[in-house]
Amino acid sequence: MNKTIAIFNLIQDDLERVEQKMREKPRLTAYLGSPTLAYESTMYEPHPTLSAVIDHLIDSGGKRVRPALALLVSRIYPSEQEQILALAASVELLHTATLVHDDLIDGALLRRGNPTLNASWSSGATVLTGDYLYARAADLTAQIEHMRVMRLFAHTLMVICNGEVKQMFDKRIRLDRQQYYERIYAKTAALFAVSTEAAGMLGNAPDPIVDALREYGKLLGMAFQIVDDVLDFIGDEEKMGKPAGSDLQAGLITLPTLYFLEQNADHELVNRISNNGRLNNTLVQAAVKTVRESGAIEAALDEARQFVRRSQTALQALPPSEYRDALWELSDFCIDRNR
Amino acid sequence: MNKTIAIFNLIQDDLERVEQKMREKPRLTAYLGSPTLAYESTMYEPHPTLSAVIDHLIDSGGKRVRPALALLVSRIYPSEQEQILALAASVELLHTATLVHDDLIDGALLRRGNPTLNASWSSGATVLTGDYLYARAADLTAQIEHMRVMRLFAHTLMVICNGEVKQMFDKRIRLDRQQYYERIYAKTAALFAVSTEAAGMLGNAPDPIVDALREYGKLLGMAFQIVDDVLDFIGDEEKMGKPAGSDLQAGLITLPTLYFLEQNADHELVNRISNNGRLNNTLVQAAVKTVRESGAIEAALDEARQFVRRSQTALQALPPSEYRDALWELSDFCIDRNR
Repeated sequence: MNKTIAIFNLIQDDLERVEQKMREKPRLTAYLGSPTLAYESTMYEPHPTLSAVIDHLIDSGGKRVRPALALLVSRIYPSEQEQILALAASVELLHTATLVHDDLIDGALLRRGNPTLNASWSSGATVLTGDYLYARAADLTAQIEHMRVMRLFAHTLMVICNGEVKQMFDKRIRLDRQQYYERIYAKTAALFAVSTEAAGMLGNAPDPIVDALREYGKLLGMAFQIVDDVLDFIGDEEKMGKPAGSDLQAGLITLPTLYFLEQNADHELVNRISNNGRLNNTLVQAAVKTVRESGAIEAALDEARQFVRRSQTALQALPPSEYRDALWELSDFCIDRNR
Repeated sequence: MNKTIAIFNLIQDDLERVEQKMREKPRLTAYLGSPTLAYESTMYEPHPTLSAVIDHLIDSGGKRVRPALALLVSRIYPSEQEQILALAASVELLHTATLVHDDLIDGALLRRGNPTLNASWSSGATVLTGDYLYARAADLTAQIEHMRVMRLFAHTLMVICNGEVKQMFDKRIRLDRQQYYERIYAKTAALFAVSTEAAGMLGNAPDPIVDALREYGKLLGMAFQIVDDVLDFIGDEEKMGKPAGSDLQAGLITLPTLYFLEQNADHELVNRISNNGRLNNTLVQAAVKTVRESGAIEAALDEARQFVRRSQTALQALPPSEYRDALWELSDFCIDRNR
């Protein structure tokens, strides 16, 4: 864990600026033309309750891995500070927006140890908060004034939403590994990829480097999500801030279960869960235990390690520096976190 | 009504192209870099069910007033066809997305005579369909490759979401006219304004003309929403495709009720509705009848007419042409529709 702290220390000042940027009220800028109705120039200002809720969501945020990725890349390929801060804040707000809608859809009550928004608020208010965060993320992306980054952002938002739709329709359905990879690419890897790729673009990195940065972010994102899915079986509930087995409980089949079923095609309990998922918590916990005690966890982690190694290979296209080393270590950290 | 048909006939070919554009599958374009994972280049393709749902939403769409506004402006200030089609499709998809989330939040079961998405689908699927439509609208806007339009789009999305949040918190609360204007600006006028303003920008109209176009769209949008709110009291249910009094039923206080209460501050029934709104349908219908038979309807329509006249005044900045006349007539039509 000390390694991670060292990585984040390298960019601590910028990470704080990103937090500020995420909390900033949007500003009315020249592109609006000449307002002639009084409310025209104020209606973008968030309602005080909305504003408080967004601050709360930012307060209870995670490790800021996506902003950290963008910031580390920008140390190697420097760009204008306002641009990189807007990018980092935008990817994190986009990520936050997807979590708000996800938790609503899954009916999740806890995230990172805090009650989810939908746990204490109406579904309508929760939908609109997510929508506003999407809009704010789009606004920050637009502020970057970089066409390719803008298009990348819109494209990634489509990938993420579409992946969530697929995940919903795939629930309680026995999917194959290919479908699993597609899902985690959409869920996590796509936005990791934007964080590193767009930072490279803003820093005018040469095209092959931009490709390598995308590759690095994407493969790291794949590993990161696999580890997330493994932690749902073996993680410390307190550190995770949510109960173990949440995925199985919600009918979501992830890599450990897939590996387990490849070796134990006839296992009744796990099959029952992967086929219809509507089981009580005792049965889910029994299934979690069964998968945890099989070789499936190690098999899934091995696969995450392979993705990490591939992400590190992609990094070799970059010139050596302490920031490249930090990106390398961030990949390693992804395997070790929260255990 | 024949007038409207004539206006829409002027741009019928382009309106059909906009429909096509709205249905088009997003394309993977060069900005993605070099995909190295198979699913990386397909994950933006909508799930077949999502795709069918979106087609259905487009099929049961409205009059396409927003695209028509953009297209009429582009006949006066021509821009590249692909750009103006992307703009027109984008504003209409953005509008569609907000309706999908609005109907979910309001629990509305009918829109334009068709069951709403939330009436037949899970709320999760409905949230994600709206999200995907936002993403697709952002993608189309990004395709325009025009920075000011992009920022205007993001800004407007914030205004719309924020307005919806305010509307939710204002429900069952006695608001004042100023708050009502703010709400309908956010709900309708802001996107009308983008449709005309952005079309002017794309056609390289001089700045004062762009301002006048924004003004026209905005004021027309204000009138349009007031008329919408009046129709909820006096409209033909069959033509509206939803029951009369839906707003009052949902606890939404609009201009006719506000005017009524300005003249009848002590009226018990209407006050009860505007104060807490949770009344049965018989009482709501009685309140609708009371407001309908008062002078409040004419007062609200008078105000809509004033907005229409102001929008027509803004048009005088434009050189005379049959398309300027069409915009003028579109304003008049706004008052006469659906009665």
